[in-house]
Amino acid sequence: MPGIKWLERITNTVADRGRELLGLREDEAKNSLADLCRRLIAGRGEASNIALAREILRLFESTDKDGKDEFFATLASQFGPAPQGISEASAAFDPEKPATLARLIEAVEPPRQELFRRLNMAPHGTASLVAMRSELLDRLRANPELSSVDADLKHLLASWFNRGFLRLQRIDWHSPAALLEKIMQYESVHSIDGWRDLRRRLADDRRCFGFFHPALPDEPLIFVEVALTGEVTAEIGFLIDPEAPLTDPYAADTAMFYSINNALRGLRGISFGNFLLKQVLSDLGDELPQLKRFVTLSPMPRFAERLNMLLAGDIEDWPRERLDPLLEDFEPALAEHSNQASPSAAVFELLQNFDQHAAALAGPLARLALLYISAMKRSPGVCCDPVAAFHLANGAVLERINVGADKSVKGMTQSYGVMVNYLYDPEQVVANHEAFVQEGRIAMSRALKREHEKHIVGKR
Amino acid sequence: MPGIKWLERITNTVADRGRELLGLREDEAKNSLADLCRRLIAGRGEASNIALAREILRLFESTDKDGKDEFFATLASQFGPAPQGISEASAAFDPEKPATLARLIEAVEPPRQELFRRLNMAPHGTASLVAMRSELLDRLRANPELSSVDADLKHLLASWFNRGFLRLQRIDWHSPAALLEKIMQYESVHSIDGWRDLRRRLADDRRCFGFFHPALPDEPLIFVEVALTGEVTAEIGFLIDPEAPLTDPYAADTAMFYSINNALRGLRGISFGNFLLKQVLSDLGDELPQLKRFVTLSPMPRFAERLNMLLAGDIEDWPRERLDPLLEDFEPALAEHSNQASPSAAVFELLQNFDQHAAALAGPLARLALLYISAMKRSPGVCCDPVAAFHLANGAVLERINVGADKSVKGMTQSYGVMVNYLYDPEQVVANHEAFVQEGRIAMSRALKREHEKHIVGKR
Amino acid sequence: MPGIKWLERITNTVADRGRELLGLREDEAKNSLADLCRRLIAGRGEASNIALAREILRLFESTDKDGKDEFFATLASQFGPAPQGISEASAAFDPEKPATLARLIEAVEPPRQELFRRLNMAPHGTASLVAMRSELLDRLRANPELSSVDADLKHLLASWFNRGFLRLQRIDWHSPAALLEKIMQYESVHSIDGWRDLRRRLADDRRCFGFFHPALPDEPLIFVEVALTGEVTAEIGFLIDPEAPLTDPYAADTAMFYSINNALRGLRGISFGNFLLKQVLSDLGDELPQLKRFVTLSPMPRFAERLNMLLAGDIEDWPRERLDPLLEDFEPALAEHSNQASPSAAVFELLQNFDQHAAALAGPLARLALLYISAMKRSPGVCCDPVAAFHLANGAVLERINVGADKSVKGMTQSYGVMVNYLYDPEQVVANHEAFVQEGRIAMSRALKREHEKHIVGKR
Amino acid sequence: MPGIKWLERITNTVADRGRELLGLREDEAKNSLADLCRRLIAGRGEASNIALAREILRLFESTDKDGKDEFFATLASQFGPAPQGISEASAAFDPEKPATLARLIEAVEPPRQELFRRLNMAPHGTASLVAMRSELLDRLRANPELSSVDADLKHLLASWFNRGFLRLQRIDWHSPAALLEKIMQYESVHSIDGWRDLRRRLADDRRCFGFFHPALPDEPLIFVEVALTGEVTAEIGFLIDPEAPLTDPYAADTAMFYSINNALRGLRGISFGNFLLKQVLSDLGDELPQLKRFVTLSPMPRFAERLNMLLAGDIEDWPRERLDPLLEDFEPALAEHSNQASPSAAVFELLQNFDQHAAALAGPLARLALLYISAMKRSPGVCCDPVAAFHLANGAVLERINVGADKSVKGMTQSYGVMVNYLYDPEQVVANHEAFVQEGRIAMSRALKREHEKHIVGKR
Repeated sequence: MPGIKWLERITNTVADRGRELLGLREDEAKNSLADLCRRLIAGRGEASNIALAREILRLFESTDKDGKDEFFATLASQFGPAPQGISEASAAFDPEKPATLARLIEAVEPPRQELFRRLNMAPHGTASLVAMRSELLDRLRANPELSSVDADLKHLLASWFNRGFLRLQRIDWHSPAALLEKIMQYESVHSIDGWRDLRRRLADDRRCFGFFHPALPDEPLIFVEVALTGEVTAEIGFLIDPEAPLTDPYAADTAMFYSINNALRGLRGISFGNFLLKQVLSDLGDELPQLKRFVTLSPMPRFAERLNMLLAGDIEDWPRERLDPLLEDFEPALAEHSNQASPSAAVFELLQNFDQHAAALAGPLARLALLYISAMKRSPGVCCDPVAAFHLANGAVLERINVGADKSVKGMTQSYGVMVNYLYDPEQVVANHEAFVQEGRIAMSRALKREHEKHIVGKR
Repeated sequence: MPGIKWLERITNTVADRGRELLGLREDEAKNSLADLCRRLIAGRGEASNIALAREILRLFESTDKDGKDEFFATLASQFGPAPQGISEASAAFDPEKPATLARLIEAVEPPRQELFRRLNMAPHGTASLVAMRSELLDRLRANPELSSVDADLKHLLASWFNRGFLRLQRIDWHSPAALLEKIMQYESVHSIDGWRDLRRRLADDRRCFGFFHPALPDEPLIFVEVALTGEVTAEIGFLIDPEAPLTDPYAADTAMFYSINNALRGLRGISFGNFLLKQVLSDLGDELPQLKRFVTLSPMPRFAERLNMLLAGDIEDWPRERLDPLLEDFEPALAEHSNQASPSAAVFELLQNFDQHAAALAGPLARLALLYISAMKRSPGVCCDPVAAFHLANGAVLERINVGADKSVKGMTQSYGVMVNYLYDPEQVVANHEAFVQEGRIAMSRALKREHEKHIVGKR
Repeated sequence: MPGIKWLERITNTVADRGRELLGLREDEAKNSLADLCRRLIAGRGEASNIALAREILRLFESTDKDGKDEFFATLASQFGPAPQGISEASAAFDPEKPATLARLIEAVEPPRQELFRRLNMAPHGTASLVAMRSELLDRLRANPELSSVDADLKHLLASWFNRGFLRLQRIDWHSPAALLEKIMQYESVHSIDGWRDLRRRLADDRRCFGFFHPALPDEPLIFVEVALTGEVTAEIGFLIDPEAPLTDPYAADTAMFYSINNALRGLRGISFGNFLLKQVLSDLGDELPQLKRFVTLSPMPRFAERLNMLLAGDIEDWPRERLDPLLEDFEPALAEHSNQASPSAAVFELLQNFDQHAAALAGPLARLALLYISAMKRSPGVCCDPVAAFHLANGAVLERINVGADKSVKGMTQSYGVMVNYLYDPEQVVANHEAFVQEGRIAMSRALKREHEKHIVGKR
Repeated sequence: MPGIKWLERITNTVADRGRELLGLREDEAKNSLADLCRRLIAGRGEASNIALAREILRLFESTDKDGKDEFFATLASQFGPAPQGISEASAAFDPEKPATLARLIEAVEPPRQELFRRLNMAPHGTASLVAMRSELLDRLRANPELSSVDADLKHLLASWFNRGFLRLQRIDWHSPAALLEKIMQYESVHSIDGWRDLRRRLADDRRCFGFFHPALPDEPLIFVEVALTGEVTAEIGFLIDPEAPLTDPYAADTAMFYSINNALRGLRGISFGNFLLKQVLSDLGDELPQLKRFVTLSPMPRFAERLNMLLAGDIEDWPRERLDPLLEDFEPALAEHSNQASPSAAVFELLQNFDQHAAALAGPLARLALLYISAMKRSPGVCCDPVAAFHLANGAVLERINVGADKSVKGMTQSYGVMVNYLYDPEQVVANHEAFVQEGRIAMSRALKREHEKHIVGKR
């Protein structure tokens, strides 16, 4: 997008000139950050404001951890709304008089919101604010008093990254190297090991799409990787193997969504995932009308942890009456095939030599996974596994549970090697979404429904 | 921008499918607009929300004036914050507890803000909301209770059209016809009479630049027209003459800014003008390093009205002691050259036959214009003429006052034919801005300063 | 295409500098054109060659008719191959020795080919050479000795405009104004009367596509206009009416190709039309899968002339035995409804009051048109009507003959108001093409086939 | 360039359909290549011609070495002009009758030229023909009878890659990965070791430009790498070190051209280098007006070989009377510092331990290098070293000779570690070019001129 570059050059010029005129010195100490912010909020000249905004963002970036801590603390303590003003406006509030509401709204708005808006005018301001929030999130747990600063920043970012401003773009080997570098950096589900690996993931039998914001042209906000195949893939290995032979995309009838990544940590809590998936479904259907199935191959990132805790007797939140019959199959199989004292160590040992003991363990483990997804609730209508929750709330069908599907260390440690296929059927998506969100009902494939009735609900 | 089109197609698809699923009928009555809005605010499924948003915007566009009146009234009365909630949150507010502030902020936020945010997700949502605000502004004077709706909509638009998201683009004969059509439609200073006229204004010895927002790729938010000349032009006629001979842009040393237009009424009160001018200065300097002067040729849109009122004795706000000596020159000149009873009619008559009586009237009229710009204040530091106020606050120099410079009906009726050159000197812009904004001091050319001292201040 | 502009700026710079160094004066007389060309062919420095090339093209453009005549004459007489060299190389030619062939090829290549290749290096060189050929074509008939110059220029242009370098682009209201201006200028089948008219032709229920060459980004080489309709249109009036109401393109099942225009006269004899039509068919099918029919509405540009000559007894090339039975219906109908002495005047009179006498004349006229298209041959396998020849050689079906379809003066004068629908069926295109080109067989719709057998072949 | 992709899709469709209709089978044997070519030359249907062309190119690519050998042999023996036709046309040739020349030109044109023109119409036809010529060049030395095929192919490619169709593009980290991959592959002067290395070469203090043809959008035909520095760099090491610290491009006053690469072997003999350099000079000057010097750092790729041959007594073409005084310094220095029997082995040994013996060897070696460049002629006005010949013919100044400048194995083996700075002064370029090309005079820096007079010419 040449426009962006051009604009940048211009505003840099404005900013540089302004900078001189502000009388700012390169080495101006970090403790002046808050002072500069005060000047920026008060400033009336727009060109000098851009210069100030740019200076503040540069200083913030170059300052050390302590300086940033201090800056955030100041934002929390000194850039909030004036309590006195709030009290007065509250007292004066009269529902019959719109002006009193306007005054109250104004009184409660923290001045740091205006500060952030003005910082956004600097060249690359949006990117800098997203990065600033990322730093802020790091400090939130230890410094709960920063939550109001985060609320304000998140409020603005959510407004600016409104879905109406995003655009979907295909990412492939013709994309700019600067963008592809980000893909490698942000892929956290199945990591990409260098350019050769990346190239395979962007080959002709693959698709990759991301959402982009016009102010961050080389930054995918979220992206999804898709493989075009002739079947519903049950194991991840083939899909991420850089040596996998190329297949004919026009002969494929299945689109396997095998990785979805949120890229910018500073946008945490501002979700784009469900839009992305649906637009990609729509686009793939247009480009490749022969596609019949849209299916994910997804991890269960908390399954191992929860199962370990259960086996160790640490938690009680598994639904006991459904669980016990499953354990009756599982624990003997474990005991028979492993000498490990701890059950979780036994599971791990067995899975690492998966092939030999698959027959014995596969069935019971799959049923525990089904129970984990279908019955354990974080809250009514929201299941315990975050990935399952995402796809089911999106209207997907729980299609298949695959034991031994991801033998990487991460796959073993998090999901005990189990991966799940969720199927997206454009005709059913809305109905499934409603059923799940309203009644907590999970749409399942026929096979899983039978399994569920026979082994889980049925044994109740 | 292909991305935009593509996105649109996709979201149309999503929206069409969603529409069916919503069970909406084409002829659904307009009184359901508010109901649909309530559903949209409450909705959880993002795809169906896009469909709903699109439906609401379509209904709004196709509804008649009464329906829109009713819709706005409902937004004002029923989509504001709950007074009960505000009272409770006000009462609970404790400056020491951030959570109580968060609750208060939430309580005062009108639900219509969330409504507007969700409407923005529809295809072309941003354009529709800008158009909606334009309709709203039409009703504001007669319906002051709508001001809170306007405040909310303006708040969001100001956030979305943050300077950091805009980009400057050159507009020329290679621009899309759809965009050029908008230029013809929005040019209100010196109207453009058809494509031939437009073509001349975009020829090689001209420049035109606009600010664009990524969500409105064919809509210039504001644009400026520039002529490259060999002198500071004193009359507008030549610059807007479609038959004016082409000159060599590389031989020009002066850039004449002869028209600045805000395009979208729905963005009233959200200003971009000063950024635009400064970036255009910077860009022209880069492209054509031989340019030495950047000067406007601007109207004084309220001069005739104020002078008429003065001559009719209707107002008293001209600074009397400076005015009287000027009138001593002006009124006899009038009387001598015209038989009209009313002074304003006399002025008008004389100016229409400008050439013959120029000598007699030009000097006195120019001095009155100088007094009007330099001495009449709307408020401290803000002069009475809006165009003068704009350029002086931007840091321009009051360079020259040209009598008989615009002989069009509009030029006569509004400015008594007078036009002003404001000069932008990049080196002085910041200092002039500060002097004007802080102290009300106006930077003038040497010639005008002398004139000012001799005839205006000096006679005091 | 920013690259092009950029390049142009650069080469201008190079050229300007080079110009100084060449010691060329602006007013250098036109008779030096040939001298400059000799310098260019001999020149070794590439930068100075660009300057020279640019200079020659500028001089040529600004020179008057006589100067151009002289320049072309010089190209013919002095820039051909040396006869002596040809004779020697011919004598030395030995089929067994490749080097002797190479020498012969070199000997016969006219130096003006190298001249044209070097002229092409100037900024806008390609466009200038195309324009130069256009001027040359104007002189060809009167100056047959220029044919060798034309052969050389055409040879190079045909090589440069090889189909492999062209690209199809959609043209719509978002296209650059500079390009749309060309569309208005080049449309010669159904002329476009200003921007409003153009806008209707580019509305949502229309499509327009052109072939472009990368060196001429704003010049469509050939373009086609398409209307999306719900039926095979028989009359042109509605399709070119700027007031015609908009229809829903997604509900259309028929694409009517109602105008194809070669744009650049300087490319005469280098054909792109059949590629264009086929690619447009393919593209429309992709974008709008609901389209079922692809049909033209075409004139018969020489029908009236040929029929007039026949009726005046001036020509004898109509196939007599088929013609006579048709005239037996036609001439009495003429005589009965008109008092004009000359038959062609009678036809014209009748057609101008078409509605009243349609019944009497329509059938006989349609049959004469069918005979004209199907039986009159320019050469074996190439029918007499150039438009029919184009579409039939392209593999189209002769679908329908419409009497009274174009009542414009041009339509009456050239085609007696008759227009023809040719239908493109992707499945049959290759077979029809082969049948027509190899055996002269014309594919017809069932109705026309019946008509043809009954009234034309049958009466034989 | 979306246009290209789109076009490709379309023509693929056309080609696929055509393919069926041609009745071609995937496994059609390679010996049919020539038959298909005959069909293509004879074919009249354009769509089926595209299908045929594509098929021929696919078959050629997938055929083995023997098949290609045979194909090229057939092109040479059977697709040349008919000797009989040439003889007849030669005999009939009459300089007074243009038609006889036209016939002769036609008679000598080998049919394979038309074949290549038609092959170019296939999707990616141009790229395939360039690749085909690359294969052909491999066979040329062993099969001189193929030279006529090469002449024809080269003739067409030179016409298509006419300078007027090329465009200069900057290449940086935002360029498509597919293009950057080519840069890594084609860089042969100072090889690029992976993406990290590449990234450094495209950082902010570097520039890279290439020439592109519209038909090969991701293929740089030739590219140049530039480093922005604060001095004329004498050693290559720093410039190609991936760990070299970033410097400020806006503070640089020197542009060092350290690598120029022709990319496509299939375009050998069609030169773009001098255009590229001059346009890059012009562009850099525009972007970075503070640049004062444009200098290369270039190898002397045949110096070591020639010097070795001289020292071994194998050649006699060094200008003896100038050489002998230089050897009087050089040989004793060699003998003193090395025990190697062969002089070339001694040189090599010494240079590998360069630092210790630099003082002794540097001066004599530099002088030999100066003699090599300045006095050894391949032909009048063309010096022996190809890189020197290129830059001097381009108008550069021989600025400095740097001993020990490239210590890589390649640098040692080819240039004995010596590198040369050639300086481009826009003001002098044309004069230097003329002096070198016309009179063989080499423009030198003052220091080198002094050295030359004192040690080389002076000792004569």
